[in-house]
Amino acid sequence: MKYLGKIKYVGTGFRGFQFQPNHRTVQGELTSACKAALGADATVTGCSRTDSGVHANEYCVLIESDLSTVPAEKLPVALKSYLPHDLSLYYAEYADESFHPRYSVKSKEYLYRIVNSNISDPFEFDRAWFIGRHISEEQICRMRDAAGRMIGKKDFSSFMAEGSTVSDTVRCIDYITVEKKEDLLEIRISADGFLYNMVRIIVGTLIDVAFERIDPAQIDSIILAHNRTLAGQTAPAQGLYLNKVVY
Amino acid sequence: MKYLGKIKYVGTGFRGFQFQPNHRTVQGELTSACKAALGADATVTGCSRTDSGVHANEYCVLIESDLSTVPAEKLPVALKSYLPHDLSLYYAEYADESFHPRYSVKSKEYLYRIVNSNISDPFEFDRAWFIGRHISEEQICRMRDAAGRMIGKKDFSSFMAEGSTVSDTVRCIDYITVEKKEDLLEIRISADGFLYNMVRIIVGTLIDVAFERIDPAQIDSIILAHNRTLAGQTAPAQGLYLNKVVY
Repeated sequence: MKYLGKIKYVGTGFRGFQFQPNHRTVQGELTSACKAALGADATVTGCSRTDSGVHANEYCVLIESDLSTVPAEKLPVALKSYLPHDLSLYYAEYADESFHPRYSVKSKEYLYRIVNSNISDPFEFDRAWFIGRHISEEQICRMRDAAGRMIGKKDFSSFMAEGSTVSDTVRCIDYITVEKKEDLLEIRISADGFLYNMVRIIVGTLIDVAFERIDPAQIDSIILAHNRTLAGQTAPAQGLYLNKVVY
Repeated sequence: MKYLGKIKYVGTGFRGFQFQPNHRTVQGELTSACKAALGADATVTGCSRTDSGVHANEYCVLIESDLSTVPAEKLPVALKSYLPHDLSLYYAEYADESFHPRYSVKSKEYLYRIVNSNISDPFEFDRAWFIGRHISEEQICRMRDAAGRMIGKKDFSSFMAEGSTVSDTVRCIDYITVEKKEDLLEIRISADGFLYNMVRIIVGTLIDVAFERIDPAQIDSIILAHNRTLAGQTAPAQGLYLNKVVY
């Protein structure tokens, strides 16, 4: 059986998605739960690597188990008592033979959450980036101006963490939205793919734009420079959520 | 100086509000933070006891410190680096001589959050009661019918945890609202005061009404019986939030 599963997790207690010996990972926990629930060997492949502390509202996995007899629609219920409280599989369907959770992706949307208030919100600890300095409507306009310059098919190597070995650094960003409701600033970024730390560097750069450390017009030359040191700071992991995966 | 402070906390890591030796409590953490931030002795009095695991969106405290020179409006900022991540003081003003955080209360609103879905939501673990069995619109109408019978000034001893030694068990409930938006069921209860576990027993009873273990019309006789065993189950602590305090 091949299943396409959709999972949700709070990233705080995981050392990222990908299996690592001696560390608690989403792939590790999910694989153990599948083996236990299906009573058969199972492999789990993810749609993306997520870093330690990064969350997922919608993350897609391929679950393969030759001996499983569980119908796809029963998989969420079959798995639920084997999964830890910070991870759930809420949907499953049969996957086509040709389906690959990473290579078949058309686009992914990430959500980045920022709490912008004088005093931090205890309910948002580990679930958002807390920025105490006020971000005004005018500063949000600056952020949107900068974000607009990132849309489209471009070489985003200036927005890739140093040390990454990916050779093709061209990606196409579909949209970046910046919305503030009361103390919560939400940034959504959709693209056909992302380089290592790309969303976090884009968000960090937008915050540097808000606080006038970078001018929106500089974004064009930062992209053309192919030089990570020219872009802004890397926003912390705890504000980042994989939010949507489109196949 | 006497300050009226408003705090927020995630209850999961606390053994309730009230100071207990050898346990982490909100009163304990807040008192230590006040002493450190004010550089002076300080006492903290709360508006209510909250149980282990119960949260607060708005909880009021009286902070008294004879030697403090910190202006009320600066208190939140003065305290913030001394408070742990699961507790914040977001507002303060000077308190009148006659003010008492518990006895001066006119009304308090509690919020109870229930996640009602087939599969649990990892982001709501420890922040809501998870109920897997579907609650329909018709069942919500039953709950509202039952809730309506609890409104007003009544003896609520049937809705008080056994073992409580309070002698006056008459309270006045202003309103109970039951609202469902997608998977989230929110119950708000406002009263001039609450007996021990009263909100949790009311919520548990309303769920028993939803699932036809109790009929809405029985509520009248349950109240008149003054007998805890006739009311429903006690809803778990993690769904409960002190939400508003009116003086």
